[in-house]
Amino acid sequence: MAQGEPASHRRLFERVLSVRNRAPADESLRVALTCEALLSETSEVSGLRLATEILHAYGTLDDAARDTFFDLLLTRFSPDRNAIASAVAAYSRDPGPAQLVDLRAAVESPRQELFRRLNMAPGGTRALVAMRRQLLRTIGDHPQRLAIDADLSHLFRSWFNRGFLVLQRIDWRTSALVLERLIRYEAVHQIQGWHDLRRRLEADRRCYAFFHPALPDEPLIFIEVALTADMPERVWPLLDPDSEVVDPSHARCAVFYSITNCQDGLRGVSFGNFLIKQVVQDLGNEFPRVRTFATLSPVPEFRKWLEHVINAGTEQRPSAQFAALLATTDVSALADDGITPELRNEITRLCAWYLLCAKENGEPLDPVARFHLANGASLERLNWMGDPSPQGMRRSLGIMVNYVYRIADVERHHEAYAREHRVIASHQFERLAKRSSGTVKFRISED
Amino acid sequence: MAQGEPASHRRLFERVLSVRNRAPADESLRVALTCEALLSETSEVSGLRLATEILHAYGTLDDAARDTFFDLLLTRFSPDRNAIASAVAAYSRDPGPAQLVDLRAAVESPRQELFRRLNMAPGGTRALVAMRRQLLRTIGDHPQRLAIDADLSHLFRSWFNRGFLVLQRIDWRTSALVLERLIRYEAVHQIQGWHDLRRRLEADRRCYAFFHPALPDEPLIFIEVALTADMPERVWPLLDPDSEVVDPSHARCAVFYSITNCQDGLRGVSFGNFLIKQVVQDLGNEFPRVRTFATLSPVPEFRKWLEHVINAGTEQRPSAQFAALLATTDVSALADDGITPELRNEITRLCAWYLLCAKENGEPLDPVARFHLANGASLERLNWMGDPSPQGMRRSLGIMVNYVYRIADVERHHEAYAREHRVIASHQFERLAKRSSGTVKFRISED
Amino acid sequence: MAQGEPASHRRLFERVLSVRNRAPADESLRVALTCEALLSETSEVSGLRLATEILHAYGTLDDAARDTFFDLLLTRFSPDRNAIASAVAAYSRDPGPAQLVDLRAAVESPRQELFRRLNMAPGGTRALVAMRRQLLRTIGDHPQRLAIDADLSHLFRSWFNRGFLVLQRIDWRTSALVLERLIRYEAVHQIQGWHDLRRRLEADRRCYAFFHPALPDEPLIFIEVALTADMPERVWPLLDPDSEVVDPSHARCAVFYSITNCQDGLRGVSFGNFLIKQVVQDLGNEFPRVRTFATLSPVPEFRKWLEHVINAGTEQRPSAQFAALLATTDVSALADDGITPELRNEITRLCAWYLLCAKENGEPLDPVARFHLANGASLERLNWMGDPSPQGMRRSLGIMVNYVYRIADVERHHEAYAREHRVIASHQFERLAKRSSGTVKFRISED
Amino acid sequence: MAQGEPASHRRLFERVLSVRNRAPADESLRVALTCEALLSETSEVSGLRLATEILHAYGTLDDAARDTFFDLLLTRFSPDRNAIASAVAAYSRDPGPAQLVDLRAAVESPRQELFRRLNMAPGGTRALVAMRRQLLRTIGDHPQRLAIDADLSHLFRSWFNRGFLVLQRIDWRTSALVLERLIRYEAVHQIQGWHDLRRRLEADRRCYAFFHPALPDEPLIFIEVALTADMPERVWPLLDPDSEVVDPSHARCAVFYSITNCQDGLRGVSFGNFLIKQVVQDLGNEFPRVRTFATLSPVPEFRKWLEHVINAGTEQRPSAQFAALLATTDVSALADDGITPELRNEITRLCAWYLLCAKENGEPLDPVARFHLANGASLERLNWMGDPSPQGMRRSLGIMVNYVYRIADVERHHEAYAREHRVIASHQFERLAKRSSGTVKFRISED
Repeated sequence: MAQGEPASHRRLFERVLSVRNRAPADESLRVALTCEALLSETSEVSGLRLATEILHAYGTLDDAARDTFFDLLLTRFSPDRNAIASAVAAYSRDPGPAQLVDLRAAVESPRQELFRRLNMAPGGTRALVAMRRQLLRTIGDHPQRLAIDADLSHLFRSWFNRGFLVLQRIDWRTSALVLERLIRYEAVHQIQGWHDLRRRLEADRRCYAFFHPALPDEPLIFIEVALTADMPERVWPLLDPDSEVVDPSHARCAVFYSITNCQDGLRGVSFGNFLIKQVVQDLGNEFPRVRTFATLSPVPEFRKWLEHVINAGTEQRPSAQFAALLATTDVSALADDGITPELRNEITRLCAWYLLCAKENGEPLDPVARFHLANGASLERLNWMGDPSPQGMRRSLGIMVNYVYRIADVERHHEAYAREHRVIASHQFERLAKRSSGTVKFRISED
Repeated sequence: MAQGEPASHRRLFERVLSVRNRAPADESLRVALTCEALLSETSEVSGLRLATEILHAYGTLDDAARDTFFDLLLTRFSPDRNAIASAVAAYSRDPGPAQLVDLRAAVESPRQELFRRLNMAPGGTRALVAMRRQLLRTIGDHPQRLAIDADLSHLFRSWFNRGFLVLQRIDWRTSALVLERLIRYEAVHQIQGWHDLRRRLEADRRCYAFFHPALPDEPLIFIEVALTADMPERVWPLLDPDSEVVDPSHARCAVFYSITNCQDGLRGVSFGNFLIKQVVQDLGNEFPRVRTFATLSPVPEFRKWLEHVINAGTEQRPSAQFAALLATTDVSALADDGITPELRNEITRLCAWYLLCAKENGEPLDPVARFHLANGASLERLNWMGDPSPQGMRRSLGIMVNYVYRIADVERHHEAYAREHRVIASHQFERLAKRSSGTVKFRISED
Repeated sequence: MAQGEPASHRRLFERVLSVRNRAPADESLRVALTCEALLSETSEVSGLRLATEILHAYGTLDDAARDTFFDLLLTRFSPDRNAIASAVAAYSRDPGPAQLVDLRAAVESPRQELFRRLNMAPGGTRALVAMRRQLLRTIGDHPQRLAIDADLSHLFRSWFNRGFLVLQRIDWRTSALVLERLIRYEAVHQIQGWHDLRRRLEADRRCYAFFHPALPDEPLIFIEVALTADMPERVWPLLDPDSEVVDPSHARCAVFYSITNCQDGLRGVSFGNFLIKQVVQDLGNEFPRVRTFATLSPVPEFRKWLEHVINAGTEQRPSAQFAALLATTDVSALADDGITPELRNEITRLCAWYLLCAKENGEPLDPVARFHLANGASLERLNWMGDPSPQGMRRSLGIMVNYVYRIADVERHHEAYAREHRVIASHQFERLAKRSSGTVKFRISED
Repeated sequence: MAQGEPASHRRLFERVLSVRNRAPADESLRVALTCEALLSETSEVSGLRLATEILHAYGTLDDAARDTFFDLLLTRFSPDRNAIASAVAAYSRDPGPAQLVDLRAAVESPRQELFRRLNMAPGGTRALVAMRRQLLRTIGDHPQRLAIDADLSHLFRSWFNRGFLVLQRIDWRTSALVLERLIRYEAVHQIQGWHDLRRRLEADRRCYAFFHPALPDEPLIFIEVALTADMPERVWPLLDPDSEVVDPSHARCAVFYSITNCQDGLRGVSFGNFLIKQVVQDLGNEFPRVRTFATLSPVPEFRKWLEHVINAGTEQRPSAQFAALLATTDVSALADDGITPELRNEITRLCAWYLLCAKENGEPLDPVARFHLANGASLERLNWMGDPSPQGMRRSLGIMVNYVYRIADVERHHEAYAREHRVIASHQFERLAKRSSGTVKFRISED
């Protein structure tokens, strides 16, 4: 801990005290001044007390006061430009190791040390994750706050390192406190209360989550798995809370049907690929007869892409009939039996083409595809009306896709994707996409 | 994770493979090249595999190979001087936020990201702490490796933040795995096997340790406490494994008679003050009748100081009789009853003066005094022949000191010490020191 | 384990095997024969296998087959009358210790040993508790099965001894498996789903349950406590799932508002008094400022008693007006504001008289009163319209009573009740009851 | 709980009080009178208080007072002879179910209810187990106390039913409290302190124990297993605390080299067969490549038998040379290399004969043989000088035996033993024994 210069320390302390007696409007200033006191505190025990005080006070700030506080974090806790300037000058004159140490110290944001010290307080990690969540909400209007976010994000990547995470199986023996959070967080296929959740934790299901020891009872990410006889085409039978529970020992397939990042405050700190890898391994040990590890995933940006290409005048674009249908907000007619085979063929072909060939900077446009393909999965099968729920229709036109994780191939597929962005797909899938390809190889990303 | 440039990635990979087939003499180079592959890896899952591989291989290196590896960490994973130079130049031209970001990235040591990635592997944290322990042993001969240490130390300060530590009470119900480590680690008063340890965990004793979730069963620091009727003068009755166990509910005093940092690899990451604070609090709750929280501490550098001042020609120096005695390596004669009251008075006066007045840069010379006084304790009592063990005689001439933690005063005392390095002592202690003071105020630190 | 005579053992085994191949109609006979094999088995390991087999087969019996099995338990596993007769004769001739041992062995029901052996199987205890639950349902029609019940009940009293029970606090961190059972079991004030349960486990509430180690996750009895400022008159504010949570540190009163025995199969094995005693102690330690430990209890047999005395021609009987009201099944009119003060006075007086003076065999008629008074509580206050819910009106005419547990008096009150069935009540309560008393001391129990 | 007759209850209470004030010589009477109060107590909560008081007072009794207390248990808490007589008379007149209930009640020892009530107190089970341990020590001199033992033993068989036991793996992560007890209890091959114990818990060993939930940290029985490449002939390499730890994944054999019943107070309540069965199952799951489950067991009564048959004039008796050697107390000469092959052959043949053919009531004379053979093991191999330790030589003449548990055969072997006391042995073993058999089939049991 840096040695505080006694005299200035005393002055600061007096300033804090005087501010403490002012009107509540100054609350955020008071918090910021206590933060300064914390940064110059030489005793870790006193620092702990100050940190506790700050987090408590921060928790009581309203939106406006928090806004002011974020501004103060920028104005008072950013690196000192003069200090940087002289460190830069010194290094330019003589680029030795001592100068480098000074330069590094000068450019490091004092906020990082501030956040590390705040973390010492009981509940510190939780409070900082919440602070970033609140900060991120304001960043659209205050892009300069990205500098604050960079500091928090840097720390979180270090603190939430895979080496510190704990994988836990979630089942009906798990505490209600955790289960209630699953209900609240689930983002892919909403959990309709406790009855629904209970079904998702029965003997033919598995649910795993990553936890961090400093955030007990707080899942960071969780995945829901169904153990089935075959690789399923449709998601709603898996979501039916009254479906029959089957004997998992007969299962040949493990379906990852939902994966949810729980903490907005940890956005950008990735857990998903570790989670899938670990779960594939654990399930493989528990169920040696399970051979297929597959997802049942949406194609969440398919419709957006279609609407984009309608006007792009390229070959890969919807027919007039399809375009007319897309023009109506409600595409639920697609789910009807009355739809012509031609239209259905057209849509599935377009979707296969979208997943395999529509790219940006060499990578698939679709975010779900990017995630699984980069993880080493392959595109296996396209399922017509796999999810005819309103959300499924609105975003994916009801289509769902199975990505498959083959243990023996995952690493090789990942390498191929990492080096050349090569997308691995089944023959069936490639044939489907090819039928859609015209003579001109169109790439949306080349616009 | 930064996007690896595919082509160079491939070349690197081929280099790694070719190295893999070479002679075992190249083992450390192979490890270093795999480290480069890990740094440029874009898949976290593949990164995890590489990290596991590296830590395994590192674990098999002999001393010589490890030495080579540390050199490679310096030559291959230090910041790029050219990159720094151009970032410095860019910032000098236009000190905007984007230039600052680039500058910060340029000065950060790639080792930090390397260590973060290594930490992802199972047992990663443990392996990195061991790596730093091994590194520190070589630093005397290789001061340039301080740069590596700075990176590890920076990460450990962040990872072993107080907010991530867990306080645990240690008793006879604790696992043998942990207890065995206490026996091995105890540095102040050696534990003579299981029988001795058992006595230190009886009903009239308390033992607490900090743990980190990523290092299960591995104490970071522990403290041993005796619950006694009065503040004790001598340490050996506390250390007697066959002493009678007393009813702790009658205790009025809690004596901290040993505090040990367990992990050489975490040197400089301080836990002690948090531990004492927490333990004082917990004991206060458990035993409301305990009023005195005191240490029974050695004066580990007293004799060294005496030998230093013998020749310094200052007023505070040993008498001829005492100097003659100090000249003999073995000072055990002091423990005899035959020693004259004059000599005893002289020694205790000198010791009191040493603790209160001998300073360097305004702080007490004695490291134990510095630790407790900075924590807010006060110097209470000096105990003649408190520890006549060979080690106690050799370092402290058998003297022990009680530092006292008074809950109501701790913060104020700490402030006084932090601002002005004011040392708080009992009247008795001050009087003792004064009798030793001549007219000229001598300060060892003013030499 | 008694030594089986090899030859008969073999014959039995063959009989079992032959039965195994018969039609499913013989399933209950097959189970009974396997029970005989179990009783004569000399190897504990083989016995364990048989026990497992029996419990599995028993679990698949339908109602009719179970009925047959209970009959077989009577006919095949009751003490042997001839053996008793000769043991009785032998003892009559020579009442020595050996004869006593033989006599005791002859009268002990072989079912007890059978049940002890069944208990060895995994899940044995759970299965036997379920068996008794099923048995008890049939006892009305088959009073001779009380002999089977006596055996199970004897074992359960021994196995569910207080010394083997574990008290656990239930809160929102408890597993969903246990919480779901609370919802299902709660008998006093139904829990309306998870939202309701969550409120009952907030910071100003406490819930405790007894568990037995052989029945993990299975509460035997649980009690719900509200921490309040004052002793409450009405129950519905406590039951409102949307009521505000108050700071428990301000509480002065702990209200036991619900206590539920969960296991029909453990009927007659009492846990309630231990639970209340323990909870009073634990709460007293956690909240030293809580001075009043009170119940808010129904008067469940008040209305039944009223209907009984209407025609009894005694002094303590409803007025004509009240009698008319009681004659209508729906007494919800009582909850209206329009009810005359006279009628209200009459009802409360009668209720006080009922609780204090209506007795049978010297003990209060009301079962809730008997339970709490025998535990050492006293009758404190009668609350008009404490529970105007349909069930509250139907049984208690909406009246609720506070019984109070005063730590200092509990033992003395219990003694007074145990020796002389003296009922301790507040002055207010006694005055209320007295106004109801006519000149002739009527006791319902004296009819 | 039976309703106490108030008046007599009061008199009893007064008697207890008056006794309380007498001299300490009456302490055991005071305890006994409090026991009477406990038996007639109608409140379970007051009962709990009395039980706690009794156990505390019992714990302070010295040997003499405890002796008096055991006598009081006989005189004051045995069944009432007059009550039995009239119940017997009533049953003789009319053997109906009501009379049977009365007869059963009359013959049951009041001590059983007393012990059940004592068990309710905290630590009750532990105290009762200790009481039986102390009782058993006195039974040789007081055979009439077998009646007390019968009551305790009956309860313990019920309470320590297999269904209530918990199997736990013991390793170096187990609490020191438990491990210290293993060191103290180990009866087969003494554990020489913590260093020795640690070796027995390394990666190539397994240790399991049964616990009862009411006796936490108190092992009831434990077994030590070594994972080895082959079935071992000698025990000392397994006991060498400095032997090398081998990789357990290569093991083909699991050797049970020690099994210890820990609680003298639970003598006669058998756990061993369940333990072995469970451990064979668990090890089979953990190490699928382990095919052989074998013991390495002493032949503890071999030498005693030899000394017995020397004078019996039968064919199976030691040669003159051997008899001379046996006559010397110290048989350590056998362990020398100088011993003639003839003598060695004679001894091994006699030992094989002893194990296979020396019987009493149809069962093997050797208690270890009886235990394993009844469990379904078979006699596999006899190992010359398997245990040349002083105890091994003194009892087994250094011979050790491998009994083998073959999962597929265990049940069949057990049946054969249970029905006909057939002893299953390897061909090698039978041949060895046969060479020892003369023409006249001698059975020690036929004397």
